[in-house]
Amino acid sequence: MAATDDEHDSRPTAPTHGERLTIDAAMRRALDLARERPVHGANPRVGCVILGHGSPVDGEVPPTTVAAAPAVFAPNGELVGAVGTVLAEGRNHGAGTPHAEVVALEDAASRGADVRGATAVVTLEPCHHTGRTGPCSVALAEAGVGRVVFAVPDPNPVAVGGAAHLESTGIDVVGDVRRCEGEEVLGAWLRAVRRGRPWVTLKTATTLDGRVAAVDGTSRWITGPESRAHAHGVRAFVDAIAVGTGTVLADDPALTARVGNERSGAPDQPLRVVVGHRDVPEDARVRGPEGALLHLRTHDVHEVLGALHAREVRHLLVEGGPTVAAAFLRAGVVDEVHAYVAPVLLGAGAHATADLGIGTIADAVRLTTTQVRTLGQDVLVVAHPQTATEED
Amino acid sequence: MAATDDEHDSRPTAPTHGERLTIDAAMRRALDLARERPVHGANPRVGCVILGHGSPVDGEVPPTTVAAAPAVFAPNGELVGAVGTVLAEGRNHGAGTPHAEVVALEDAASRGADVRGATAVVTLEPCHHTGRTGPCSVALAEAGVGRVVFAVPDPNPVAVGGAAHLESTGIDVVGDVRRCEGEEVLGAWLRAVRRGRPWVTLKTATTLDGRVAAVDGTSRWITGPESRAHAHGVRAFVDAIAVGTGTVLADDPALTARVGNERSGAPDQPLRVVVGHRDVPEDARVRGPEGALLHLRTHDVHEVLGALHAREVRHLLVEGGPTVAAAFLRAGVVDEVHAYVAPVLLGAGAHATADLGIGTIADAVRLTTTQVRTLGQDVLVVAHPQTATEED
Repeated sequence: MAATDDEHDSRPTAPTHGERLTIDAAMRRALDLARERPVHGANPRVGCVILGHGSPVDGEVPPTTVAAAPAVFAPNGELVGAVGTVLAEGRNHGAGTPHAEVVALEDAASRGADVRGATAVVTLEPCHHTGRTGPCSVALAEAGVGRVVFAVPDPNPVAVGGAAHLESTGIDVVGDVRRCEGEEVLGAWLRAVRRGRPWVTLKTATTLDGRVAAVDGTSRWITGPESRAHAHGVRAFVDAIAVGTGTVLADDPALTARVGNERSGAPDQPLRVVVGHRDVPEDARVRGPEGALLHLRTHDVHEVLGALHAREVRHLLVEGGPTVAAAFLRAGVVDEVHAYVAPVLLGAGAHATADLGIGTIADAVRLTTTQVRTLGQDVLVVAHPQTATEED
Repeated sequence: MAATDDEHDSRPTAPTHGERLTIDAAMRRALDLARERPVHGANPRVGCVILGHGSPVDGEVPPTTVAAAPAVFAPNGELVGAVGTVLAEGRNHGAGTPHAEVVALEDAASRGADVRGATAVVTLEPCHHTGRTGPCSVALAEAGVGRVVFAVPDPNPVAVGGAAHLESTGIDVVGDVRRCEGEEVLGAWLRAVRRGRPWVTLKTATTLDGRVAAVDGTSRWITGPESRAHAHGVRAFVDAIAVGTGTVLADDPALTARVGNERSGAPDQPLRVVVGHRDVPEDARVRGPEGALLHLRTHDVHEVLGALHAREVRHLLVEGGPTVAAAFLRAGVVDEVHAYVAPVLLGAGAHATADLGIGTIADAVRLTTTQVRTLGQDVLVVAHPQTATEED
């Protein structure tokens, strides 16, 4: 399953430098590092811990080591409790910034720790391509680490090959350690890279009788402040937000993530995507300085997803209106529904989704509820279409 | 607030005969007795405990007493810890059966306990009228109890006067003990008697986009088995269920409460009410033998409520369809909404409620959510209109 609130709620934990950890515990710490903060766009959430295998030394400066890592794996491949001292930690901070492994190596260097022979514990297989940063596989090999342990193999066709390169240089490589947790942390990013299209979350905000606006088009506000704050948290978590031109013309939304000062910088704002043939007015709020705007003059959902995938958008939030919602639902590409339901009745007005071509109850779009959350007076239902994402 | 699930979930607790209890503890026990089982129609849920004030005697037979009850109230009227031995317990079982006080007096007689001078602790002021049973005030006075302690004054204009009669015969009477809890237990009954009309619960069962049926009218099933079982539990709790003739003609519902064998007897089934001018077909399932049928050939909601109040219906469940739901909402008489929301999308089809005459968001019917409950894949939202029941 994809991004959930648990991830929004994660809080930084204390660094572990100098602590004695098993490789398994170091992976748990690396996973915590990966969880610490949403990372957007092309870059997955990754954490890295470097364990030295020399004797522990008390004091502020972690011990350095040149000793070879001891053998720690049972014949069946299970970890059997190798222990090391944490020399360094790292996690990535978003597109264009160094990867977690490089951050950890820099952390070690800044502390004067020698990582030769050490074990690098990382949540995702080190990349093997030169993008905005150099290949992590090469950086680790050049630093002289003795072993690399990772949770999830890299699904990215252009980045894959890190493990093979490391092994070719004589480094001990072990994968699939806490893989399941690692996949959970990677969430939508992993699904998106595997499938070659963004993970799609459809948001609706309705009355108890399914209305998104009154007869005169007014819709502010149906949901309460707690729901709206939550929705801004989700916006801050995704890479792009899509609406139709109709929504731009009717509601003039800014489509920015407003979550206090946690994410105020423009680089962190999601890409704003407007779908449809009509022009976006020059003074529309989506043209504001808080983020980039992409206007896709098409009604073809697959074309939209292709264009976003090419821009390395991994998680798309579709916010409506009814026409756009229906287009994504009809195309069968909605991976997740966030339905905010407010204790309000209108009796008339626009619906969350336009006609889906469904004539009888047997053909209804059925979803599986994965989360129910009370937000003030409202309820958030997170649900996943039963037919979607079967390929994963 | 009215009937909630907590009340459905209540379980009988062990009898307390022979235990030494304070009057306050005896009231808690009486409230537990009242909660033990839904009681329908004209009769409220009432529990009664009789405390003897002689010395406790070990053994199976509770002690009898002729001693006068000791003075137990501080000058400010607070209970100060009088203790007695439980001689008898009772609760009522529904219309036409003896009231809780009479059941308790019979319990005492069957055990050979002498209640002269004892304290009768009862959750509702003893009635003072001859209905299906005689006045409890007279029964208590004739039995020779020394004191009556009750939680809630009787709001029923035809039954009131019990406390005054008891006092006139020299019995010590204390009211308002745990009154707040007592009112909670009486729930919809108390509101209904005070206002002179039934408490109205509106039920909806919709998709996430607010549909109650597909385009072709099919609606079985939108909600899952857990929601449907819950809805049957609610039916078993109310006095009457109303639908429109349109629902009878389209869906042919039986409108019975099917909750295993807990309430299989015909007398326990709610009254089935059909509202509207069209005829109810001779073979309609609402004409089945499981309960009574009342066909009200009117669209006037106040006329419906008046007719039901005259039949001592205290809690009415409105199950639809959209026309009937809208009529009750427009009349401003909906006290509670039970909205079952299923993770299903239809994109078209009938709505939970017909037009309410609302044109702009500021005029929306706004409710306060009091309960959110996950039922399998579905969510139940219990909410109360913010403008309703202000008179209480």
